Amino acid sequence: MRNAPPSPARWGSLRLSDVLFEKLTLIGAGLIGGSIARAARAFGGMAERITVSSRSQKTLDRVAELGFADVCEIDSRKAVEGADAVMLCSPVGTYAAIAAAISPHLKPGAIITDVGSTKQSVIRDIGPFVPAGVHFVPAHPMAGTEFSGPDSGFAELFQGRWCLLTPPPGTDEDAVQKLESFWSRTGAKTARMDAAHHDRVLAIVSHLPHLIAFTICGTADDLADETRQEVLQFAATGFRDFTRIAASDPEMWRDIFVANKDALLEMLARFSEDAQAMARAVRWGDTAYIEDKIIRSRKIRQSLIELKQA
Amino acid sequence: MRNAPPSPARWGSLRLSDVLFEKLTLIGAGLIGGSIARAARAFGGMAERITVSSRSQKTLDRVAELGFADVCEIDSRKAVEGADAVMLCSPVGTYAAIAAAISPHLKPGAIITDVGSTKQSVIRDIGPFVPAGVHFVPAHPMAGTEFSGPDSGFAELFQGRWCLLTPPPGTDEDAVQKLESFWSRTGAKTARMDAAHHDRVLAIVSHLPHLIAFTICGTADDLADETRQEVLQFAATGFRDFTRIAASDPEMWRDIFVANKDALLEMLARFSEDAQAMARAVRWGDTAYIEDKIIRSRKIRQSLIELKQA
Repeated sequence: MRNAPPSPARWGSLRLSDVLFEKLTLIGAGLIGGSIARAARAFGGMAERITVSSRSQKTLDRVAELGFADVCEIDSRKAVEGADAVMLCSPVGTYAAIAAAISPHLKPGAIITDVGSTKQSVIRDIGPFVPAGVHFVPAHPMAGTEFSGPDSGFAELFQGRWCLLTPPPGTDEDAVQKLESFWSRTGAKTARMDAAHHDRVLAIVSHLPHLIAFTICGTADDLADETRQEVLQFAATGFRDFTRIAASDPEMWRDIFVANKDALLEMLARFSEDAQAMARAVRWGDTAYIEDKIIRSRKIRQSLIELKQA
Repeated sequence: MRNAPPSPARWGSLRLSDVLFEKLTLIGAGLIGGSIARAARAFGGMAERITVSSRSQKTLDRVAELGFADVCEIDSRKAVEGADAVMLCSPVGTYAAIAAAISPHLKPGAIITDVGSTKQSVIRDIGPFVPAGVHFVPAHPMAGTEFSGPDSGFAELFQGRWCLLTPPPGTDEDAVQKLESFWSRTGAKTARMDAAHHDRVLAIVSHLPHLIAFTICGTADDLADETRQEVLQFAATGFRDFTRIAASDPEMWRDIFVANKDALLEMLARFSEDAQAMARAVRWGDTAYIEDKIIRSRKIRQSLIELKQA
């Protein structure tokens, strides 16, 4: 999973000595923010100085101890002053309030971006606050672990992973390319996508699986005491894999579900229909139907392996 | 995952030189059967000679090449002749026909057992064919990988995993203990359980997660062509974990679903209610409800880690 840092060759016309941003401000210092800061320190060419802001003094104290920021500043308005790039790395439900607060303090020509798992909501929440002359480039690095908080980050988190950019039509091309270069230097692969399309794809590949994993853990927990104890004791592979997914950050996922409501509910409805069809086949012993569905799943797994995603 | 073989100390009064079965016959030589044979070879004290039977000549040819059986015999009736223990290691849907065929050829005093993931169906399907003087001890080693076939097995598969025995009331105690010793020598931990209870526990920890994983892969595959391609390309952690579960053997899982119909449909109904409640919370933005469910999932994950199952 953790590869060597990207070779300078893939950075196109940018040289290693070109630093993309004089001052980079990260708002939020959890797994993603902490990993971005560490990557910038480890691989170079990304930011000259890093300011980290967090609503929690405890988090900032820990960031100072860990030493991955040049400046720790609890006031997000002060933190963004003079920044060439501002990255929102907090749960997506916090974006509207943060954007409203920092908006008057953004430097002309600055890039404001984010790392959220939903993109239409981010455009809706941040877009109205972006001042003229500031470039808004929504982004989503598709990387994570089941851990959270400032201690959980590491420089190699993004290597070989996708970072999807969803710039609204008319976004300054130089700003988009600069952000693409930034993510390339973390080792990520970048792609551009329409925000609505992004949200549908993410609903099925990530948001629905998480909703299902959280739900089945609750279903198991609701069983009679004796059974529940044995569920824990005899958790087989299937359930264990689900609980790993379900170990993610509650506030982050709560916000994602609400922010991507429409696409998530559509995918859940499709899934529920399919699960009911499978239930009917089980009830009536329609073995051909069941086997066909299982064989299809294996093919998808095979496609994933061929795409080197597995 | 693969630990050192179990120390002789834990085998109770049995000595390493005591061989449990002169002749062991395995019917089915996939992941589980092939791993049992390899474990018997690797750790000793389990079986003097191993006969493997399979309905497929191709599988038997491969078993002969791999060399983990002393005798390969396509006719299951001949394969069980003179065997001290007969283990059914094929999909549970094949058990009734196999039991009917081999029943007249079982040696008095022999143990007939299995490795199926459902236990009430196994008792229903094999029970009526067990001759007087033959001991029927249903068993379920809770171990597996996403691979199948004779090449996929390995001697260490069962180490540290549970093997659940569900002997019907009145089963010969010596026979049960002998089978417990057998599984202990593979490195597994053994426990006894009522068959109906087993089936409910397995429905929630294993069968339902597999049904869900198979289903969501199909849901994704049904999306419009463009989206499907991107689902594969951008498969995030959640979906990837689901496809790993979904890569298991189709015939085996088809049989398990049908064989454990009642418990599986009950657990699916409970899960569906819970998923609908979550959907409603997402629709109406009930963030407290969503967060509470996520926090509960994390607690279950924590309990699993504490039980050293994670």
